[in-house]
Amino acid sequence: MKNSAIIIIGNEILSGRTLDVNTQYIASKLEILGINLIEVRVIADDENLIISCVQELSSKYDYIFTTGGIGPTHDDITTESIAKAFNVPCVIRQEVYDLLSNAYQSRGEQMNPAREKMAHFPEGATLIKNNVSLAPGFRIKNVFVMAGIPNIMQSMFDNAVQLLETSLPIITKSMDLMIGESIIAETFLELQKAYPSISMGSYPFKKEESHGTSLVLRSNNSELLEEAFTKLHKAMSKFCTPKL
Amino acid sequence: MKNSAIIIIGNEILSGRTLDVNTQYIASKLEILGINLIEVRVIADDENLIISCVQELSSKYDYIFTTGGIGPTHDDITTESIAKAFNVPCVIRQEVYDLLSNAYQSRGEQMNPAREKMAHFPEGATLIKNNVSLAPGFRIKNVFVMAGIPNIMQSMFDNAVQLLETSLPIITKSMDLMIGESIIAETFLELQKAYPSISMGSYPFKKEESHGTSLVLRSNNSELLEEAFTKLHKAMSKFCTPKL
Repeated sequence: MKNSAIIIIGNEILSGRTLDVNTQYIASKLEILGINLIEVRVIADDENLIISCVQELSSKYDYIFTTGGIGPTHDDITTESIAKAFNVPCVIRQEVYDLLSNAYQSRGEQMNPAREKMAHFPEGATLIKNNVSLAPGFRIKNVFVMAGIPNIMQSMFDNAVQLLETSLPIITKSMDLMIGESIIAETFLELQKAYPSISMGSYPFKKEESHGTSLVLRSNNSELLEEAFTKLHKAMSKFCTPKL
Repeated sequence: MKNSAIIIIGNEILSGRTLDVNTQYIASKLEILGINLIEVRVIADDENLIISCVQELSSKYDYIFTTGGIGPTHDDITTESIAKAFNVPCVIRQEVYDLLSNAYQSRGEQMNPAREKMAHFPEGATLIKNNVSLAPGFRIKNVFVMAGIPNIMQSMFDNAVQLLETSLPIITKSMDLMIGESIIAETFLELQKAYPSISMGSYPFKKEESHGTSLVLRSNNSELLEEAFTKLHKAMSKFCTPKL
């Protein structure tokens, strides 16, 4: 099973101005693709931080997904920083230049330095198609570089999937109990001990002023997961009626 | 100005099951408190990962805020892991034991090992009050350890503020333009060059099928910020009418 990390690049996340929703999208897709997500980092639009973070994580994990900082303005420095991280120059890609140039011309507009910036990529990069707003993302080595705007990022991620080596999906089975988690904790721990390879999490929630607990089991071994889930269901029935 | 990092601890974020909203809450508050947020990491409920991440970041930044993993179930391992990170034992805090015990007794319930777990803290920790569900968070050295459930985390953060050394708030001024960012990019860059100490970001958005750009200026020097913002307003007026 391949492992991976996400790097969210953007001052707007660190200032609290923008809620990051890209992590959840990528994380959910990686579950289905059977790729393990080990960590996420959110860092500023800062060249040195981007370089050191990309160098560290790309040597540690199979796949790195970055979002943010590939637009036309001066605060978009991800592409250049990642080129520097891998010690290659940023070069113009004629096919992207033509794509953008044609699109602007069809609206009666011209290219300018800001627009040309979006046609530059680290030498040797593989382009990742953007079905929303044309300017592509790219892959260099094991790093997939995508836009920060959620619908554009999603288009790029979906187009990047073909470049990933996938495995059995991670399956999630969960049940909700209308009972506090401190009551079922010991029984739940016993099940975890019986199935150490299955990831088991307990998440409290509140519904109409009552306390509830979601028990979540995750594994890419569907048979073992079913077995454990059946046992969990039986074990929890002594406390209350589990809702699957 | 103090600097800081956030560590979001929880498999539920890395699996995509849960959207992390704690980063945005803490980040927004840190702006007001004048504390610089340098990075955020999301990691799994894994002892070794928690220990190494806390050790690395607590020696690098003034303040570390963690969320998640301090509940009663077996997957809540943050408290013990952080005690290990600082090489101190986890000890029972009688005042918390009594607080919880009294609360359970008033509902006709008793303490159990899972509930006792929430009365254990690293030796020497300062408790952080939880106005929502009683079981406190804590501070050890420069690390503030809080719950993952947003409303509980928010209560703990607000109670932890008194333990932080604050400075001038970071002020944000922004304007929206109904024009694409590649058109204003060069003018915006000139302003950034004239005011290098002010953080300037450009964020595209879409509204009723039209493309717009938010220009965001951030600084804790309010006079300089006003000056730059006035110049930005004037400079952008040549493209369209900025909305403040």
